[in-house]
Amino acid sequence: MSSTFPRRRFLTGIGVGAGASALAATAATPAAAGSRQPAERSAEDTPVAREIVPFDGPHQAGIDTQSQAVAWVIAFDVKEGAGREQMRRLMRTWTEDARRMSRGEPSITELEPEMVAKPANLSFTVGFGEGFFDAIDRRDQKPDWLGPLPAYSRDRLEERWCGGDVMLQVCCDDPMTLSHATRYMIRNAGTYLDLRWIQDGFLNANGTRAPGETPRNRFGQLDGTVNPRTEEEFDEIVWIDSGPEWLRGGTSMVIRRIDMLIDLWELLDRKGREEVVGRTLDTGAPLGKEKEHDPADLELRDEFGLPVVDPKSHMARSMPADGKPGLQIRRRVYQYDHPPQPGSAESEDTGLMFICFQKDPLEQFDPIQRRLDEEDRLNEWIVHIGSAVFAIPGGTREDEYWAQSLLEG
Amino acid sequence: MSSTFPRRRFLTGIGVGAGASALAATAATPAAAGSRQPAERSAEDTPVAREIVPFDGPHQAGIDTQSQAVAWVIAFDVKEGAGREQMRRLMRTWTEDARRMSRGEPSITELEPEMVAKPANLSFTVGFGEGFFDAIDRRDQKPDWLGPLPAYSRDRLEERWCGGDVMLQVCCDDPMTLSHATRYMIRNAGTYLDLRWIQDGFLNANGTRAPGETPRNRFGQLDGTVNPRTEEEFDEIVWIDSGPEWLRGGTSMVIRRIDMLIDLWELLDRKGREEVVGRTLDTGAPLGKEKEHDPADLELRDEFGLPVVDPKSHMARSMPADGKPGLQIRRRVYQYDHPPQPGSAESEDTGLMFICFQKDPLEQFDPIQRRLDEEDRLNEWIVHIGSAVFAIPGGTREDEYWAQSLLEG
Ligand code: HEM
Ligand code: HEM
Repeated sequence: MSSTFPRRRFLTGIGVGAGASALAATAATPAAAGSRQPAERSAEDTPVAREIVPFDGPHQAGIDTQSQAVAWVIAFDVKEGAGREQMRRLMRTWTEDARRMSRGEPSITELEPEMVAKPANLSFTVGFGEGFFDAIDRRDQKPDWLGPLPAYSRDRLEERWCGGDVMLQVCCDDPMTLSHATRYMIRNAGTYLDLRWIQDGFLNANGTRAPGETPRNRFGQLDGTVNPRTEEEFDEIVWIDSGPEWLRGGTSMVIRRIDMLIDLWELLDRKGREEVVGRTLDTGAPLGKEKEHDPADLELRDEFGLPVVDPKSHMARSMPADGKPGLQIRRRVYQYDHPPQPGSAESEDTGLMFICFQKDPLEQFDPIQRRLDEEDRLNEWIVHIGSAVFAIPGGTREDEYWAQSLLEG
Repeated sequence: MSSTFPRRRFLTGIGVGAGASALAATAATPAAAGSRQPAERSAEDTPVAREIVPFDGPHQAGIDTQSQAVAWVIAFDVKEGAGREQMRRLMRTWTEDARRMSRGEPSITELEPEMVAKPANLSFTVGFGEGFFDAIDRRDQKPDWLGPLPAYSRDRLEERWCGGDVMLQVCCDDPMTLSHATRYMIRNAGTYLDLRWIQDGFLNANGTRAPGETPRNRFGQLDGTVNPRTEEEFDEIVWIDSGPEWLRGGTSMVIRRIDMLIDLWELLDRKGREEVVGRTLDTGAPLGKEKEHDPADLELRDEFGLPVVDPKSHMARSMPADGKPGLQIRRRVYQYDHPPQPGSAESEDTGLMFICFQKDPLEQFDPIQRRLDEEDRLNEWIVHIGSAVFAIPGGTREDEYWAQSLLEG
């Protein structure tokens, strides 16, 4: 595990493993011939189904991995009476299952191999909350920064979206594979863990988004532009390289559930919407610039001497104080959008499953969130309703299970 | 509107309309270069984003259209006081908006053209419930078959998933486009319609499913094998060709919300699961046959003289009484899968948004459902909890709006 390497996506061969029969059946189907939707695409045009995110490596998947189309994040509490031995057993099973499913292969107890035959970039990421270290009686191993975040003045947190002892993030480009895989993992956890909350999210689907293309959120904004991309940036911002063995190559995860008040947002005109964030809606360029990835310039003035980028805009407030384009956290957000609850005053229950990764949430996330909480024009249209922090163990060798050195230590 | 033609999918040119800037921005992004996920695919590999389902034609879209990855079906009630004039205005606006968005073009009042720049096979289908004909004071135009279905003995219908005066089905291969488009339509209906219910569903994503490939449901079954496919079959089974002008080229839609008891289902072994439906899990072939689309043979006996296909299996019971593979309804089902409600005894809130189209629901859907209700081994694992029927007007010419001849007549 000494050298880092980029996590690449691989294509499985057509007809590899359990996928073979499904693909063969497709080729034989009369549907394509007689259909009212003549086949302009063939099985070769659905490479996404066979794409694989490698499970093993110096870091867990689902962190530097380009965002897949759909995700579920699941928080559990360790059951009364379950301890280190039980968590060891769970992590061994979970790792083995996740490793196999990531490859499109059924795990040993799988009765439905067809449901994992389209890995479609399936990835799993595991993390631990504060309570986990009590449960395994290793309080000494708990990172200092692990625990609830400081309270922010605008927080309207709901208990049902907060906390958790164990976190599992599952991402995939196919919702059916995701649905099966999450259920499989949840079921196998049943003996040791209680479900605490589940959050589900989506993005522009794969197959509709080019590699590297920034997805849009429900406010119409390109969301994810300023983010670490190179290995150096990830090393600097995300991967922990000191402290306990199990946490090296790991990181911390912050997840905030943020309600987006779309009814109010839509009362703004286009110019207003752009000023609130400090970027244009079409290209996502910083105001006064041309292209999405042009560096923002907070010093720019218009013909009247007024700042082109409002210093209270979301971009300006979330940039590092020195005014340089900030690369301080790895944001990897998903949108949620559910039919509104009956009796709700809002027309929609939509918002961000805001997820970010960084070495230390108190050093990196907190200062940004404190600045935003204090002043950010976007605040008028968003409300933080959920919050949790997890320690994300480093990656695995092929013969290792998640957090092995923590649980065997 | 005299001649029928197959509804084809078209690709928009790269950089057409509002999509141009987004694609240009992509090309310029440094992400692809420096990313840990090197770009093995390019913008040309995301044709799904630019695929278009033509809006106008002899029939509405979303019926014979190959199932897109995600769908919302929305039911409304006509507001007190709204009548024919208001419905005329609504249908005119809705048609114009849907027609444009289907092409990836913003409608006139759209403030976020970027959000419709990836049509990704976006389709809209409108329908009317019984109450609509009262509201527009054209009770004489209500088809005889329109109204609640007969009660079936096993029904456990919940009011919140039943009925509705107006129905809008929106399907798309991109969840973000879908989310924006449904909201746009709902918002524009607000003056005249009250929301009654929304159901959302998904399938194996496009880009992970080849054309003509049957998607799997959450019971692991290939679901949708026996279905009309040729124009002749659609003419025979689906499209109404007599009666009032506005309904010609139209059809009827039945939507049933069916809870799937996956916790119990998983207690069955593989063989048991296959016997319940009468088809294999891997290829979806009828038991005793080899390939998915081989015709079922209910006469086959095994070495002990027992029927290979259980006469009480779902397939055997849903086939026409004469034992020949039935093509009696056009099934176009979606899966739903939501995190379980707090306090629910089930581990999952999952099931089918079962949708089917046919000339006459009482002549076609009802006999099948009566047979299934009476006896179907699958009944042990499913519960019908929602039901509605809608009349689906025929298609439109480019200068027409939905149900124009009904509303102007
Ligand atoms: C619903 C809530 C939010 C929305 C809609 C939102 C949206 C955006 C958008 C559109 C951008 C500009 C494009 C980009 O760089 O991705 C942005 C940038 C950014 N946001 Fe947010 N954001 C939200 C919440 C947050 C939170 C809670 C944080 C962290 C505390 C955060 C931190 C950042 C950072 C660090 C940047 C990059 C700033 C720069 O250096 O240019 N955002 N956000
Ligand atoms: C959760 C509920 C249901 C599930 C899981 C289910 C599943 C299936 C499966 C796996 C097949 C075999 C493959 C195929 O032809 O697609 C099938 C066939 C069929 N189903 Fe269902 N189904 C359900 C409810 C219904 C209902 C409510 C109806 C109509 C009343 C229906 C009518 C049919 C018909 C007509 C066929 C084709 C039979 C043939 O001619 O071979 N199904 N279903």
